[in-house]
Amino acid sequence: MTMKVKPMGPIPPGFHSEQGMLLIGGRGAAALVDETGETPLFAYDAGMIRARIAALREAMPRGVDLHYAMKANPFPPLLALMAGLVDGFDIASSGELSLALGAHVAGGRISFAGPGKQDRELEAAIAAGVAINLESEGEAARALAIGQRLGVRPRLAVRVNPDFELKGSGMRMGGGARPFGVDAGRAAALARHVIAQGALWRGWHIFAGSQSLDAEAIIAAQSQTVALAARLSEEVGASPPLVNLGGGFGVPYFPGDMPLDIGLIGTALGETLESRPAILAESRFALELGRYLVAEAGVYLTRVVDVKISHGERFAVVDGGLHHQLAASGNFGTVVRRNYPLAIANRFDGPICAEPLTVVGCLCTPLDRLGDSLALPPVEPGDLVAVFLAGAYGASASPSAFLGHAPAMELLVED
Amino acid sequence: MTMKVKPMGPIPPGFHSEQGMLLIGGRGAAALVDETGETPLFAYDAGMIRARIAALREAMPRGVDLHYAMKANPFPPLLALMAGLVDGFDIASSGELSLALGAHVAGGRISFAGPGKQDRELEAAIAAGVAINLESEGEAARALAIGQRLGVRPRLAVRVNPDFELKGSGMRMGGGARPFGVDAGRAAALARHVIAQGALWRGWHIFAGSQSLDAEAIIAAQSQTVALAARLSEEVGASPPLVNLGGGFGVPYFPGDMPLDIGLIGTALGETLESRPAILAESRFALELGRYLVAEAGVYLTRVVDVKISHGERFAVVDGGLHHQLAASGNFGTVVRRNYPLAIANRFDGPICAEPLTVVGCLCTPLDRLGDSLALPPVEPGDLVAVFLAGAYGASASPSAFLGHAPAMELLVED
Repeated sequence: MTMKVKPMGPIPPGFHSEQGMLLIGGRGAAALVDETGETPLFAYDAGMIRARIAALREAMPRGVDLHYAMKANPFPPLLALMAGLVDGFDIASSGELSLALGAHVAGGRISFAGPGKQDRELEAAIAAGVAINLESEGEAARALAIGQRLGVRPRLAVRVNPDFELKGSGMRMGGGARPFGVDAGRAAALARHVIAQGALWRGWHIFAGSQSLDAEAIIAAQSQTVALAARLSEEVGASPPLVNLGGGFGVPYFPGDMPLDIGLIGTALGETLESRPAILAESRFALELGRYLVAEAGVYLTRVVDVKISHGERFAVVDGGLHHQLAASGNFGTVVRRNYPLAIANRFDGPICAEPLTVVGCLCTPLDRLGDSLALPPVEPGDLVAVFLAGAYGASASPSAFLGHAPAMELLVED
Repeated sequence: MTMKVKPMGPIPPGFHSEQGMLLIGGRGAAALVDETGETPLFAYDAGMIRARIAALREAMPRGVDLHYAMKANPFPPLLALMAGLVDGFDIASSGELSLALGAHVAGGRISFAGPGKQDRELEAAIAAGVAINLESEGEAARALAIGQRLGVRPRLAVRVNPDFELKGSGMRMGGGARPFGVDAGRAAALARHVIAQGALWRGWHIFAGSQSLDAEAIIAAQSQTVALAARLSEEVGASPPLVNLGGGFGVPYFPGDMPLDIGLIGTALGETLESRPAILAESRFALELGRYLVAEAGVYLTRVVDVKISHGERFAVVDGGLHHQLAASGNFGTVVRRNYPLAIANRFDGPICAEPLTVVGCLCTPLDRLGDSLALPPVEPGDLVAVFLAGAYGASASPSAFLGHAPAMELLVED
């Protein structure tokens, strides 16, 4: 019986091997595992993150700040690396605030978005000088009251639910009824109110969507965002110190996905900003990126525990699984399961086995499938499987306690 | 603009209110929150678990043991309760082994299934006298070698990948190529081998599927399971001390779901067992249930932080979300999002608001939706939202570190 091979996404550029062993940050995958002592291991290549950010800086126009949306990966050594590379951090909870401050990011470089900020979270953030991206009139009232109680002028921006969406994005966060931000029609009134109440006005946060691979769609959304920010600022009668343009930059995960052309986006954004309305003349602009900065730099390494045949199909069972890398199993917010790119790390350029291999995690549930019917070299117990695109929404976005296994190790690999 | 109300699943029977407040184990939801100090809170009603198990014992024939598949809910006080109520525990990792032993479950009452058991896990289990449900020939060789090294005769059963499936089950675990167990055609040979090598023969583990609400399908699968166990035992030439019939008993989650008729199943299983082949005359039988024992007894309580309107739609933002209750958000292995049953705990029988309400979690992602366009009483910040069916695959099956919020509290409520 010959099974059909299913495609997988592209291995990110920049991964090579030496004597058949996958290198991460110039180090062999097996050596990294030996160093940390155990699989599964998330290894993050610091050099790839630096290179990604340098390429972005090069492509984007001057005066555009780069913010890191730390929900993508809050591993402390990675945050410390980021603190020296980006202009600001975007947080989504007081837990993330503590981690950002722990990475020596000053409160003034942090902004806080999220629809369910609690009073104690607002209080911690306002006390630390963090800018609050207000999600509603009710949240504004609470932030103002807390500022008054603390004797601090809160730094407030308004998050706007735009009237347009980022087309082709993995997650739409604007256009129509959304729990995020204030509808564009009410945003100026809210801004006027918080300014009148004595807040330090920070500007606008407009996030239209995420994970888009369509440069034209991102260009259109950025242009609409700048126009919306100008229109709202005119309504308010005040220049915004900062316009957060959101993110939306996607990375290729699946078969057929093509990398985003950031050169196109940068050129277009430059033109948009050059011709911007006068009320935005003194404003700074920021891109808020998480996944785009870190996803491709991460590899999840897990060891083959068993290789078995069932009804003619080959299965490799590994010591990791969806409890560490839920998204790769296709069970986190996806409708149709597709294969992330995956390799046998210690046979990186080995000849492909004629029979396809299905890679399953160690959890006792049929959901725990990391690769379905892949063309890979022959495997045996002890081999290391590499699941790519593990730098964002991996370790921290997975149900690590499920079935009582130990959490994965994490390592930032410096060349 | 009038939005359309979407249906939700049925609130499990047995939940009532007093002066508008939802009672859990006879206690008001708000009082339980006050007692633990914080939301979000998972509250598990011990009385409902006892009643469920008593009803099962009543419905099932004598001589059928009840095992708890602790992956459904490993909260230690709940395990301690279970230890006094069921005959055996089924574990899926050495982490679960530690928890079961910590709940004073003797090793001899525990069995261990899971496709990726590591050597150190096998060693801990064999040393503790736990029965291993072997998933492959390779695992058998490792278990035998570990037994020899420890000077212990390992207690071994063979997990069989049956040639049939449980129809209508939420997750099929048999029929066709699977990573679980040994194909039925190779199971007898493996059993003969481990017996010949001196293992203590424990019998068969045959798990055809889970979360079925179709009594006839479960009856058919149980009958096929007993027939398969008999046929394999004849091939081996040895009576199995235990035949684990698997589980598959589902609970109603979604609109239109009807509760399982366990009376029908018990009667049919009684007939199946009465007419069983002679080689199974002395065998015990076990049902391995997780979700069915605990799901309906759990309620996830989370507090409303904000109520907002966007484009005419009403949103309640709560302080919990998918980081605690991933399955309720519809993002864990489901194709189409449907609403779990949900209520406003402190307005349990209040008049319904004319406008539907969408309940979203506090995470800054559009995935974090706990209830979509529901008919509920009017809400305001401070109200308590109750998400039902939170007793299984809730706290332990959710990405608790995602976005840096605190884990949920858990409480076993004794009447």
